[in-house]
Amino acid sequence: MSLDMPETPFIAVDLEILQANISRAAESARQRGYALRPHVKTHKIIEIARMQHAAGVLGITVATIGEAEIFVDAGFTDVFIAYPVWLTPRKAQRLDSLLDRATIRMGIDSVESGQQMKELLGGRAPLIEFMIEVDCGHHRSGIAPEGVTELVSGLLELGLTISGAFTFPGHSYGPGALSPAAQDEARALEQAKSHLEAAGLCENLILSGGSTPSLASADVHVITEQRPGVYVFNDAQQLELGSCDWDHVALTVRATVVSIRGNRVIVDAGGKALAADRAGYATGYGRVLGNPEARIVALSEHHATIEFPKGQVPTRGDVLSVIPNHVCNTVNLADQVYVFDRGELVDTWKVAARGRNS
Amino acid sequence: MSLDMPETPFIAVDLEILQANISRAAESARQRGYALRPHVKTHKIIEIARMQHAAGVLGITVATIGEAEIFVDAGFTDVFIAYPVWLTPRKAQRLDSLLDRATIRMGIDSVESGQQMKELLGGRAPLIEFMIEVDCGHHRSGIAPEGVTELVSGLLELGLTISGAFTFPGHSYGPGALSPAAQDEARALEQAKSHLEAAGLCENLILSGGSTPSLASADVHVITEQRPGVYVFNDAQQLELGSCDWDHVALTVRATVVSIRGNRVIVDAGGKALAADRAGYATGYGRVLGNPEARIVALSEHHATIEFPKGQVPTRGDVLSVIPNHVCNTVNLADQVYVFDRGELVDTWKVAARGRNS
Repeated sequence: MSLDMPETPFIAVDLEILQANISRAAESARQRGYALRPHVKTHKIIEIARMQHAAGVLGITVATIGEAEIFVDAGFTDVFIAYPVWLTPRKAQRLDSLLDRATIRMGIDSVESGQQMKELLGGRAPLIEFMIEVDCGHHRSGIAPEGVTELVSGLLELGLTISGAFTFPGHSYGPGALSPAAQDEARALEQAKSHLEAAGLCENLILSGGSTPSLASADVHVITEQRPGVYVFNDAQQLELGSCDWDHVALTVRATVVSIRGNRVIVDAGGKALAADRAGYATGYGRVLGNPEARIVALSEHHATIEFPKGQVPTRGDVLSVIPNHVCNTVNLADQVYVFDRGELVDTWKVAARGRNS
Repeated sequence: MSLDMPETPFIAVDLEILQANISRAAESARQRGYALRPHVKTHKIIEIARMQHAAGVLGITVATIGEAEIFVDAGFTDVFIAYPVWLTPRKAQRLDSLLDRATIRMGIDSVESGQQMKELLGGRAPLIEFMIEVDCGHHRSGIAPEGVTELVSGLLELGLTISGAFTFPGHSYGPGALSPAAQDEARALEQAKSHLEAAGLCENLILSGGSTPSLASADVHVITEQRPGVYVFNDAQQLELGSCDWDHVALTVRATVVSIRGNRVIVDAGGKALAADRAGYATGYGRVLGNPEARIVALSEHHATIEFPKGQVPTRGDVLSVIPNHVCNTVNLADQVYVFDRGELVDTWKVAARGRNS
């Protein structure tokens, strides 16, 4: 098969760096003694999940039933839907059909949600392995660790199966927050564990944490598994948080210079190719591979405005490699990614779970 | 055809409000004496472009050759690609095939780009009606109005066709900026006009402006056409800028309450359903239809965190209507939208030009 170089903007994945990122994380997990259950919402690509599987991961994590369907259809049989799904009759049917083909774990943070599961799934509900979601400081979904006893008691009364607890230390996304967030993660999971054990749930408890920034600081005496997502590609956020190096960036958006004025350059990748994320700590709307001084100072739907240092301004028609701020949202914009091996286009991969939000 | 209510999150379009928005803008343009050439990048939907056409618009505006292809294939024959496209051999082929089927206007802001067009399109290049892009204060692409004479001279030497000038007053997106930006727009286009006339281009000059916030303040003594996009749907940005009312919002993302803690509620629409845009002036990551006091205080990929006033907190399983901040990026995430007429699901429309970024 001969591959044509696509028109910009498009997503380019560096196969060598991707493989190195996957191998390094798997090896680190083995050495440090926890299981890796990567979050595939980052890439939504079956080929990459297979590379992760080959590197030795326990199973995968997804955000939605729709993502679970794509990966179970592709042969993955151990899937954690790390989200407090509210079941509807149709979602119940879809979930039910997954239960015959895979081990399904699901997040839960309320008795009401358990009752809804029981009502709509009946005798099939206990097949789901529920994971109690605890809040370790990110203050999104999940309950405070001290509420675990009451929730567990309610869920056990419903006859549901509980296999552990999980948390997402999303507050690790901030300068200097990586290590403190990892400590919060460990503390919350340790508290959850003692509540679970007090409820008689002692065997094979899963204590699941994970975010890419906090991964290196994870407390391996507490957690049994980690669910990082971004580590396969990395992105400008990880660079600016100091949780990856420039040569660990496996995904860029290739963009063409279309307009120049002084040292300000416009490229043809805007929010519809890069995604519009910009955290408070970010220096711009992404970074430019090969030019750490360049700053993406503005972003429209089809324009990124990049300021270059004097003397380093590219010319019209040049193709730049832009590192997006938040790669998960970038990949979700594309139907496919283009795979490069040592600079040569070798494959295209479908973003199989793109848009599977429900 | 019987339609099933989709699972959340999904995009709901209110047909009645959509039609009213389209009619009101078309009627206003007629009364005030300018042509309307709406930017269809907002909706990317053929059915909506047809509604705009039926309401009496001159033609359509798009951002990319890929969008132009979708709408020319659907029968639209007057298309302005309002972008300084840098032509490659493949883009030249695609553009060439459009020239047989439609009148194509294109933005341009450099002689280099004109040379590239000439080189790759040869004798077909003069079929394109070029529009000089001038910068009226947004400082993105486009040249300063005083540079028009030199650019026009260079393009005319290449034998290219120039039919007018355009500008995008994107700096209208700020509190109190609507009317000043409209004045900047008029000033820049008036300057461009005098330079064009000095170059002997006097007949049927098109002076094209447009952004939804500045639309009402447009100087109709200068501009001959406007290119608003967002006005068909409106969004939280327009609400917060004061350029639309709550009952002009035609598009929402339906989202289910999945988790509650005090007055903080999590719904299942995050950045992958709403888009992650948040301008400096925004009060949050969107608004909630029917509850002007609610604030979307945080956004992850699959979670929006909404704070409700005490006593107004919804319950788990409730479906809310979330108004996204920037509707253009929201629509670009979805493969289809669901059309409601007086609360009843009546149709689904394909987002035909989704992801057509090149």
